[in-house]
Amino acid sequence: MPGPSTYFDPSRIGELDPGERDLVARRARVLGSAYRLFYREPVQLVRGLGTRVWDAAGTEYLDAYNNVPSVGHSHPRVAEAIAKQAATLITHTRYLSAGVVRYSEQLLATLHPDIDNIMYTCTGSEANDLALRIAKLVTGGTGVIVTSNAYHGVTTEVAAISPSLGGVESIAGWVRLVDPADLGRQVPAALAEFSAAGIRPAALIADTIFASDGVLPDVADLGTAVAAVRAAGGLFIADEVQPGFGRLGQGMWGFDRYGIVPDMVTVGKPMGNGQPIAAVMTRHDLVDEFNRHSRYFNTFGGSSVSIAAAQATFDVLRDEELIESARLMGQYLKTALTNMGKFVEVRGAGLFIGAQLESEARAVDVVNALRDRHVLVSASGPANDTLKIRPPLPFSTADATLLLTELDAVLR
Amino acid sequence: MPGPSTYFDPSRIGELDPGERDLVARRARVLGSAYRLFYREPVQLVRGLGTRVWDAAGTEYLDAYNNVPSVGHSHPRVAEAIAKQAATLITHTRYLSAGVVRYSEQLLATLHPDIDNIMYTCTGSEANDLALRIAKLVTGGTGVIVTSNAYHGVTTEVAAISPSLGGVESIAGWVRLVDPADLGRQVPAALAEFSAAGIRPAALIADTIFASDGVLPDVADLGTAVAAVRAAGGLFIADEVQPGFGRLGQGMWGFDRYGIVPDMVTVGKPMGNGQPIAAVMTRHDLVDEFNRHSRYFNTFGGSSVSIAAAQATFDVLRDEELIESARLMGQYLKTALTNMGKFVEVRGAGLFIGAQLESEARAVDVVNALRDRHVLVSASGPANDTLKIRPPLPFSTADATLLLTELDAVLR
Repeated sequence: MPGPSTYFDPSRIGELDPGERDLVARRARVLGSAYRLFYREPVQLVRGLGTRVWDAAGTEYLDAYNNVPSVGHSHPRVAEAIAKQAATLITHTRYLSAGVVRYSEQLLATLHPDIDNIMYTCTGSEANDLALRIAKLVTGGTGVIVTSNAYHGVTTEVAAISPSLGGVESIAGWVRLVDPADLGRQVPAALAEFSAAGIRPAALIADTIFASDGVLPDVADLGTAVAAVRAAGGLFIADEVQPGFGRLGQGMWGFDRYGIVPDMVTVGKPMGNGQPIAAVMTRHDLVDEFNRHSRYFNTFGGSSVSIAAAQATFDVLRDEELIESARLMGQYLKTALTNMGKFVEVRGAGLFIGAQLESEARAVDVVNALRDRHVLVSASGPANDTLKIRPPLPFSTADATLLLTELDAVLR
Repeated sequence: MPGPSTYFDPSRIGELDPGERDLVARRARVLGSAYRLFYREPVQLVRGLGTRVWDAAGTEYLDAYNNVPSVGHSHPRVAEAIAKQAATLITHTRYLSAGVVRYSEQLLATLHPDIDNIMYTCTGSEANDLALRIAKLVTGGTGVIVTSNAYHGVTTEVAAISPSLGGVESIAGWVRLVDPADLGRQVPAALAEFSAAGIRPAALIADTIFASDGVLPDVADLGTAVAAVRAAGGLFIADEVQPGFGRLGQGMWGFDRYGIVPDMVTVGKPMGNGQPIAAVMTRHDLVDEFNRHSRYFNTFGGSSVSIAAAQATFDVLRDEELIESARLMGQYLKTALTNMGKFVEVRGAGLFIGAQLESEARAVDVVNALRDRHVLVSASGPANDTLKIRPPLPFSTADATLLLTELDAVLR
């Protein structure tokens, strides 16, 4: 998660032009202090198409940051699917509907056949929350292992396993943190700690691109760690909210790169290209066991418009060959960034790239300087020193040239 | 929450016609055992307009149940607002946007001026979860008081305060249940229990129409209970997810009928007429204090399309005078249902009506018989013996006549 300095500082409101100043002041009054604005100088977006967005003054920006509009801003097929369904019917899953069944079949077909059930929510937070509920009920355990700067969402339950959100002091007593660079030793050690404390393990949960840990595409010993958790009676939850749906350029899912079959997979952000839809996918035996203890119904989860958006997004991802595109363009960008010779390290897979600079101050300056040159990126990592480059997937060579040109100018 | 028998029994799948049987079987395979279908014979909805919906065979149904499409199914103004925004831009609140500021100002203007901040989520569950997070952080307490058959959502945190979801055994140790018929005595008793157990109270939370408690429009001593909770250092959270946005026919909010100013208000279901949008509204001093302890960002919360849908819904509610319509039509329906002389009791406010029958079995039979006559309602209450009549707000006199005629035929 970016540190405060990639955000607008409310005390500098006097420096904004009058129209913007008024809107920022009104926004602060109603949305309150928990809401922040990106960049030293906020951007007021009013329109988007593909990899480009425009502000209120008509200035065009290259979006090299937003992973939610994954098949491109305002994609006409997705927009049309949403428009058509909103004018026809919006309802929930307790009426029979062919659309949700058809989409679920297609999505589950991208996973190992053992993962045969899907439960819809509206956000990745809700999906991770539900996955933990299921894991705790079916294992009878409470212990959860996460990485040291993990982010899994904002409900009470998942905020308690997200050190990057509220710091280590916000983490629950039933959570153990492990360094993603040392999983092979630290996961067994965490399990031993659980055992000593009389805590039964429920799950290891990991974002398979380890985004908030600094974008780590090739974590060692993930398979060993998963095996150790399973041997101790726990489950492995792959949090695919960020890496999922082809962003990493190799298959649909981040865990595909490790040859692991998770017990549960959670998805969200890019699933409906901006429409609020997310899900848990898991084995039917786990769902059946959960169902013996509890119930679940999410009014908006898998509703007609959300499914229409998800289906169109899924179709575009396939028809426009965006996974292969992410692989090629990601490789090109990573090589070009490395060859610039200005980064401590360039890491990533597909179109999820972390380019580490020497300090947070430097990263924040670069993020803001790029914004002033109309290129949108952000910073991430435990030290907030890593540029997070994570554009919509239809990122073209012209887009890459523009990004590299502006970045080169800024880094000089 | 309705008991199992208002739902389709999967073991009776052989009785369905072949096309439906195939879809139900495929649905069960992918959605799994936690998903249920309304009615002994499921309904496959494909289209809706106003208070009417149509199934795959073209049969028209009167919708006297769904409170989410509150200004009417597929309302053209809402559908157009969604379509236009989806084709223009879908993004989040960290870019400056006039739409979310304008809508927030209008919505907050319907509340007491002390309630001056809004935080967006996607579901009522997330809103109640966030309200509890804020309440616990700002009061330093953990104790929560809810009514004996309360329903507040499905995240781990709010499932733990929802006895109607998983039964009394699913309720957390920091929760006390109170009978809504005896708040004046039981709330102080619960506070005394907290005190004896060394638990500091965080909040009393109540759905102000007490829907899952059987639809109770005039609960005694709510004001006294709120005062007792505040005196003990706790807050009052009004859960307006079901009663809010004018459904009760008297002002925008359920608590308006009690002359109470809550510390927090949570909203959801009808807010975007089906688009997944929900929120917490509260005082800025509580948000500021929360913000000193934690952070909150919800990627899809208050995103461009959700705000466009909410603004259009808000505008239609006002322009079509639907609150006054709910008041008039609710009064008419309640009187007519009472005069039928077939109910143990008819309760409600506006277009949220509970018509209690002598048993669950009777209520379930009536719900299914109405479905067979193409009128959609459900059952509710602690004993699941109460018909829940909760139609879209543009319910006309012709709709009322149809409902009453079919109900009369079924009850004979």
